[in-house]
Order: sequence, then structure tokens, then C-alpha cells
Amino acid sequence: MEITPSFLHKLYRGKWGTTVRVPISGNLHVYYTPGVAQPCQDIAADKELVWSLTNRWNTIGVISNGTRILGLGDIGPEAGLPVMEGKAALYKYYAGIDALPLCIKASSEEGILSFVRAIEPSLGGINLEDIKQPDAFHVLTAARNDLEIPIIHDDMEGTAIVILTALLSAVTMMGLRLEDERIVLLGAGSANMGFLQLLDALTGDVGNVVVVDKDQTYGSDNASNHWMSSLLRKTNLVKKHSLEQALKGASILIAASRPGPGVFPVEYIKNMKKPRAVFSLANPIPEISREEAENVGVDIYASGRSDEPNQVNNSLIFPGLMLGLLVTRKQYNAEVGTDIASSLSLSSLSEGKLIPAMDSNVHAHIAECVVNHFSSKADSKQTIKWKDELSWRLSREQK
Amino acid sequence: MEITPSFLHKLYRGKWGTTVRVPISGNLHVYYTPGVAQPCQDIAADKELVWSLTNRWNTIGVISNGTRILGLGDIGPEAGLPVMEGKAALYKYYAGIDALPLCIKASSEEGILSFVRAIEPSLGGINLEDIKQPDAFHVLTAARNDLEIPIIHDDMEGTAIVILTALLSAVTMMGLRLEDERIVLLGAGSANMGFLQLLDALTGDVGNVVVVDKDQTYGSDNASNHWMSSLLRKTNLVKKHSLEQALKGASILIAASRPGPGVFPVEYIKNMKKPRAVFSLANPIPEISREEAENVGVDIYASGRSDEPNQVNNSLIFPGLMLGLLVTRKQYNAEVGTDIASSLSLSSLSEGKLIPAMDSNVHAHIAECVVNHFSSKADSKQTIKWKDELSWRLSREQK
Repeated sequence: MEITPSFLHKLYRGKWGTTVRVPISGNLHVYYTPGVAQPCQDIAADKELVWSLTNRWNTIGVISNGTRILGLGDIGPEAGLPVMEGKAALYKYYAGIDALPLCIKASSEEGILSFVRAIEPSLGGINLEDIKQPDAFHVLTAARNDLEIPIIHDDMEGTAIVILTALLSAVTMMGLRLEDERIVLLGAGSANMGFLQLLDALTGDVGNVVVVDKDQTYGSDNASNHWMSSLLRKTNLVKKHSLEQALKGASILIAASRPGPGVFPVEYIKNMKKPRAVFSLANPIPEISREEAENVGVDIYASGRSDEPNQVNNSLIFPGLMLGLLVTRKQYNAEVGTDIASSLSLSSLSEGKLIPAMDSNVHAHIAECVVNHFSSKADSKQTIKWKDELSWRLSREQK
Repeated sequence: MEITPSFLHKLYRGKWGTTVRVPISGNLHVYYTPGVAQPCQDIAADKELVWSLTNRWNTIGVISNGTRILGLGDIGPEAGLPVMEGKAALYKYYAGIDALPLCIKASSEEGILSFVRAIEPSLGGINLEDIKQPDAFHVLTAARNDLEIPIIHDDMEGTAIVILTALLSAVTMMGLRLEDERIVLLGAGSANMGFLQLLDALTGDVGNVVVVDKDQTYGSDNASNHWMSSLLRKTNLVKKHSLEQALKGASILIAASRPGPGVFPVEYIKNMKKPRAVFSLANPIPEISREEAENVGVDIYASGRSDEPNQVNNSLIFPGLMLGLLVTRKQYNAEVGTDIASSLSLSSLSEGKLIPAMDSNVHAHIAECVVNHFSSKADSKQTIKWKDELSWRLSREQK
């Protein structure tokens, strides 16, 4: 019998479960009736107490409607469940967070929004995942407006932060200056648009970026929503520029396309400036393999695969990012993302790496970046409280 | 510092958490990208595989909108969370089931229904909890119609089954015949109405039952919905009968009132026939204490308290009931409930008890009752599959 991923998923019949954290035996009268009435009444009198009398402080939802699972497209909520379970397992494993894998039947933006509004009282945070664009962007924007808990869309933010980290490192490693180089983005999905937003927040100028699909330049005229068009308007909008034309003289290609392998001839890369970096992020199979990239003279190569070095994958980011947001109970913003990318790039470079490895203390580092970001805008009492809370959470996980 | 229930809830900051069930270290490429794409594609091709490739087979939602938390009334979703967490912990502790405590913001029946419809693809079953009537009944009925997974409303079914168990045992212990005795139900909430429905399913005649609130007899004219009125029409509808009048000559009182202690003078009990049984189920504090009941000559007394003997509490029922429903993937019906009550009463009486103790193998026994119930209507291949599945689940828990 061949040991395939499906075989192993079937062997374990899923990747997560629940656990009991209190001594139930002999104490039903404390943790169930009648004792449980007391914390209920306490919270009814002061809603804030839900954060200390229940597990809400550490509970998040990983929520998808299954319309854009990995690069597989709209395969429905049931088929998305293995990914959300994997994410829930990683949240626990890397950051001690209790995440609920929730694949929901909701085809409209309003359907997803109704669901997150309804479930909010049970959660400390939400990770939206694998929802097709522009729905994901609209839901994220509306939910941040309506809800009081932090919400990230991991394809947009987790992936974007790790791409920006890799870009900052690559530019330094190749001895270039970011503002002098042409950056080509292939694909205008969540990852690349999220990255573009971060780059704009960091530099204030994305005129050196060209966004293309396999046929031509993306501009505000073919953007599918207002957010995309307002971002794309700031890029270099060469009319009818094809990928082949865009790559001439570019030193960085960030490919995050839906089709993946075969989306363009590998030879196009030969027209890029030297030194050159290619991040090939299609999932599960990259547009260009490491071997192909080496054959056409790519100096720095990264893909999204977890079985390769230089893994540009959101799993590096989301556990620590959510941990920091749960500690501070603040909403994510682009500056949090650029702070994390700048800090991660610096520490990676000091070890001669493009991005941190998954086995380092990267998640604690990222959570600290988030706490530091909000601490710079808070009073010292609040800051101390957050830092204590983060230390407590991290030491709890090391037990 | 006093060790109150709230102190202990705060100490643990909640009662449940998640856990990782696969060897993640070094295997991200199997359980996250790229490997996770394979089970996703398998499920996309055959939706049935979600039951073997994910944890859906063992995942349920404990869902409340906070409108009828214990006997505390409508205290809101946040304040209901300690109860749902407690329930989730008990599901794990007693039946190995992974239960998500979900308190939702949904004030209308349609709001609750939209939520359960949306979340269905992630769950193997649903336990509706602490939702006010008649909403709970309407939502339960509609959800069973719309959804393919088993749904129980624990106040209605878990509590009803344990009341019926206690009644069957009490009648036998007192040497009476059920059909000869007057049974008075105080309160027409989920527990008593659920019990009445079960009794009707078991005996086909509830003309010896009088349902009262503290002022007068409940009839079809003061029922709040069609289900209640169709049930109440079958009872003994003595016009303007008060609780005091109803108790004259009755041998069994089942009090499940919202107000709890003080709802009626304890002296009323003295007018009951001898021998007499009183189940006083208000939560967290019973209408009549054990001491008061003994003072007025009650022969068999039971309350809902977990710190007392004869605990008539749904926690005795729901873990095993849901386990049996998860194994068979069948919808609950009243005959499942009467089968469980009859079987539990027989085994309790053989040990000289009213109802089984929480520390016995009651949950496995109940799950077996459920599997036996559906096996009697299935072919032998299916029956063997269910029994194997239940054995596997039970042995897994004993590890």
C-alpha cells in the first residue's frame, strides 16, 4: 500500500480534536450545574469578563466557504475541510491557539458576513481563508467594520507578509535598491494584491511594479473591485504589456498564479536583468520548479512548498500574527504587516537566510512585533499588561 | 480568598481547548501544503469521503443563542459561553466527542437556522442548547427537515429521557402502575414538554397527566405553539385547576419551573397520595430541597443537582445519545428516547437505583441503545459496521 497524503489523512481520520482543561472528575458541580451559573451571571453583569472566565481569549475560527481552496478553485465547503483542519492544527502547534476549522455553506458575501457576525461572541479572532476574490476583500473590509475582534485573511496578509520579507531580503542579498528595480507580479489574486498593498504601505511608491496575468498588464480597467483598481492605479500601467515584455529588464518576478506550472515559457526569465530573483508561489505545484529556475540563471529562488528551502508560505506568519492580535485585541492593519516583514528580513539576513526557517522561534518573534507595534501607541500600563500576557502564553506553550 | 466556581473558572480561563492528532513535525508537506491538496481533491470527487479524511465524524457544535441559559433567562450569548464550554468538556470527557462551544448572536428563529445551515458541512451533529421556547422547538423541527446530520435539543431530549427513566423506576419502586397514577407537571418548558412527548410515545395515553404553571392548568388555549397545544390536548385538561388542586390525589410531581425555589408552598405536597415521588428540577436551585421534601413525607426525591444523589440531569444522557447518533448518522426520534429510558430504568432497578450513576458505563450503554434501535431497522451488513464503529470509538477512548 502506497503511503500517500490521503492514506495518512485517512489513517488519522482528521488532524485535530478537543481536549478538557479542567479537572472534571468529582467537580461536575463546579464546571457544570449548578456552579457554572456563577460565571454566567458574572459575564451577564460585565461582558468583559467573558475574556477571563471562558476560553474566548484563545479561541479563533478558521473560516472558509470553499470557493478558492488552495489553487484548486471552488470545490465546496466539505472539500475545503482538510485545509482548515491543517490550519487549525498549525495554530495549536506553533502558537498554542485553539482554532476551529469551519467550512461553511455560504455562496454570497452577505452569507459569509452573517455567519461571522453570528459567531463573534464565541471567538477571540477570525482567520478568513480560501474565499474567492473580490468576495474575500469585501467580506474582510465589512467584517472589520462590524466586528470588534481581529480578523485576518491569511492569503492576503500571511502570504503578503512573507513575500515582502523575502523581497526585502532578496534585494539586500543581490546588492540592489528596491526603488531602482522593476518588480513583476504575475497574477492579481489575494497574495499578490495583499503584497502590493503592503509594499505601498512600506514605500509609498509602487510605480516600479507591473502586475500582469498571462495575457497582459492588469490596470484599473480590468480590476474586479474598487480596492484592486485603486491599488493598480499606482503601479506602472504599461498598456498591453505582456508578461514577456514586462520581464525584460525586471529583476524580480513574483508569480502567484492560479494555473501554476506551464502558465508561461521558462525562457522568458532569460530576458530579466541579472542578478534576478523568482518567487514561484502557485500551490500545490509552483509555476517554475527550482531546477528550471536554476537552468535559466535565477540567483534567488523561492516557492510555497514546505518540502523545499526558502518556503514562502503563510504558515510562517499566521500563528504569530494571530497570537499578537489575540494578546492586544487590536485589529490588523498594513503597518503591522510591514513591521513584521522588516523585522523578519533583518533577523533572517543576519543568519544569511532569505526568510526565517519554520523551526526557529519565528512565531514568538512575530507576536512580539505585533505587541511592539501597538505598544508604541499605548500607555505603559497597557504595554506591560500585553507583554505579561504574551510571556504567560509563550511559557504556557513551552510546558 | 474564597474558592468559588467563578474563581476556578478564572483560574483555568475556560474549560476546553484544541489538540493536534497528527505528527506535524517534519510532515508539513503531508498535513499542510502541498499534501493536503490530495484529500481535498478526493472529497471534491466524492463528498462522502469527508467522513473518513477529516474529523467531521467526531465533531459537533453545542449551539445556543443565550436566550434561556440554565434558569437564568435571556442573558445573551457571551454569558452563555461557560455553559456551552462545560457541555463541550463533558462531551469529550464522557464520550470522546470533539464539541465546539458556540454561542451565537441570533435573536430570531431564522437567524439560528441560517447559522446551523451554514455550519453543517463542518459538523457531524448539532446539540441545540438553552434556546427559549417556542423558538427552540421551531428551530429543531426546521433544522431536522433541512439538515442531513443528527440534531438534538438537549433540554428537550436529554432531560426528557432522564425524567422518563426516573419516572419508570419510581413507579416500579413504589409498587404502582403508571396508568393508574396522576402525574403533575409544573412548568411547560423544554424539559416537561419533551418528557410529555416521550411519555406519549411510550404509552400512547397521557390522559393521567396534568400540566400546570403556578397559577392554573395549561391547555391548548394557553400553549405558545402548535406542538405544545397538540400535546397538551391529550392531557387531563381540568379547567382552572391550580397546582394545589392538581396535586390532590396525584402521586408524582415533576417540577421544572423557571422561578425555582418559592414557586409554591411546600405544604401542597402533603395533599398528594402516598407513596409519592417529587422530581424538583429547577436549575441551579430546585423548587424544593431534599430536606423540605423529606419533611413533608416524600418517598422518592430527585433534583437536577450534580452534588446530590438521584441527579436528574441531561449530562447523564447527551454524551451517549450523541455518540450513538454519530455512529449511525441517523436523526433522533422519540422511540430512540423511550428505548433509552426503558433500558436505563431496568438496569438501574437491578442495582436498586432510580437512575444510573454518572460514574458507571452509562454513556456506552446509551450509545449501544441507539445503535440497537437503528440496527433493528437495518440490514446485517450495516449493523455490523455500526457495532464495529462503536467498539472502535469506545476502545479509542479507553486508551
